[in-house]
Amino acid sequence: MKKFAVVLSGCGVFDGAEIHEATLSMYAIRKLGGTYDVFAPDIVQHHVVNHITGQEMPETRYVLAESARIARGKIQPLSRFNPEDYDALLFPGGFGAAKNLSSFAFDGPDCSVNEDVEKAITGMHAAGKPIGALCIAPVLLARVLGKGELTIGQDQGTAAAIENMGATHKTTGHGQVTVDRANKLFTTPCYMLDADIAQIGEGAENVVRAMMEGL
Amino acid sequence: MKKFAVVLSGCGVFDGAEIHEATLSMYAIRKLGGTYDVFAPDIVQHHVVNHITGQEMPETRYVLAESARIARGKIQPLSRFNPEDYDALLFPGGFGAAKNLSSFAFDGPDCSVNEDVEKAITGMHAAGKPIGALCIAPVLLARVLGKGELTIGQDQGTAAAIENMGATHKTTGHGQVTVDRANKLFTTPCYMLDADIAQIGEGAENVVRAMMEGL
Repeated sequence: MKKFAVVLSGCGVFDGAEIHEATLSMYAIRKLGGTYDVFAPDIVQHHVVNHITGQEMPETRYVLAESARIARGKIQPLSRFNPEDYDALLFPGGFGAAKNLSSFAFDGPDCSVNEDVEKAITGMHAAGKPIGALCIAPVLLARVLGKGELTIGQDQGTAAAIENMGATHKTTGHGQVTVDRANKLFTTPCYMLDADIAQIGEGAENVVRAMMEGL
Repeated sequence: MKKFAVVLSGCGVFDGAEIHEATLSMYAIRKLGGTYDVFAPDIVQHHVVNHITGQEMPETRYVLAESARIARGKIQPLSRFNPEDYDALLFPGGFGAAKNLSSFAFDGPDCSVNEDVEKAITGMHAAGKPIGALCIAPVLLARVLGKGELTIGQDQGTAAAIENMGATHKTTGHGQVTVDRANKLFTTPCYMLDADIAQIGEGAENVVRAMMEGL
């Protein structure tokens, strides 16, 4: 049984974790015979967005408590994550990766990364264990590791930012996975492309399968 | 192409739509070659629950805006739903079905049902079109139609309430679908059983496939 740690960043594409990517990643892990625990940093969300209008709302929400909606309450603060306990680490996407787990949405290649996220990535990398990231989440790996072959699909601005942070960007299409065997990094574009939920399921399954084969 | 209307009740199992059931239903529809639009009533949530502690939070949230998180912003008020435009109607579960779409969580078999939900069900039923429901959502069909063969799995209290509302309950296990061909009702227990996300995917796919075959 391969044991995954899945790191969420809230609940909803515009201010948190992308729900389809998170759910379909967890589904793929179980379907392919693995298990998972869910983590999120215990911090305030950068902001709250009305997902119909796209407007900011005058509310305060917490990344851990909102992520718990996707995890059905079974979640731990990322500060408690120990690389020794897991075989693989996976980051679904959504703006939460770029607003809560890091400041990439605002600062681009000069972004800061949440301390617990950074520790989780450097810890797993040092242990030679696979790290996966969907959608925009590969920017976390580029910023923390400053190297690696990654994909966020085809967006030229984000690809350039990834290269600026010291990583190499590979252009990919729906469901394709960029595998960096040397660094054990596994990335796929999902909703960074104009995608449909069936394509997200395909991307999530492909990246989880590649990670399991890479173990 | 079979066109589904998916009705959500918020975003999160304890005060809204169950996220895995909603996502995996939408995934199954697309994977099996259908299309979907998402609807939710434009009402205030019954309450907001912290999904870690289970405690009520002193907040106000709106069913339509929170459901939009699962729908990635592509959602319509249920008041605009027209049975003529769709081949099938599907209700994922979660406490939202029993707290926002109806008062079943509080009033049991004497519950009231949201007016737009009632219209959607009676409209599709009158048109002889299939209606599906996951988890606790079959109670909506029992209350509105007062008949039909339905399942919510194995919970005896809920099964008794369904019978009290005039429907017949069938006991089922993981992934099983109760099909009422006469009334074109398709139900499956999902998280009304102690289930795993892979079993939710199986249940969602089985109910959507049965609905497509029933068209």
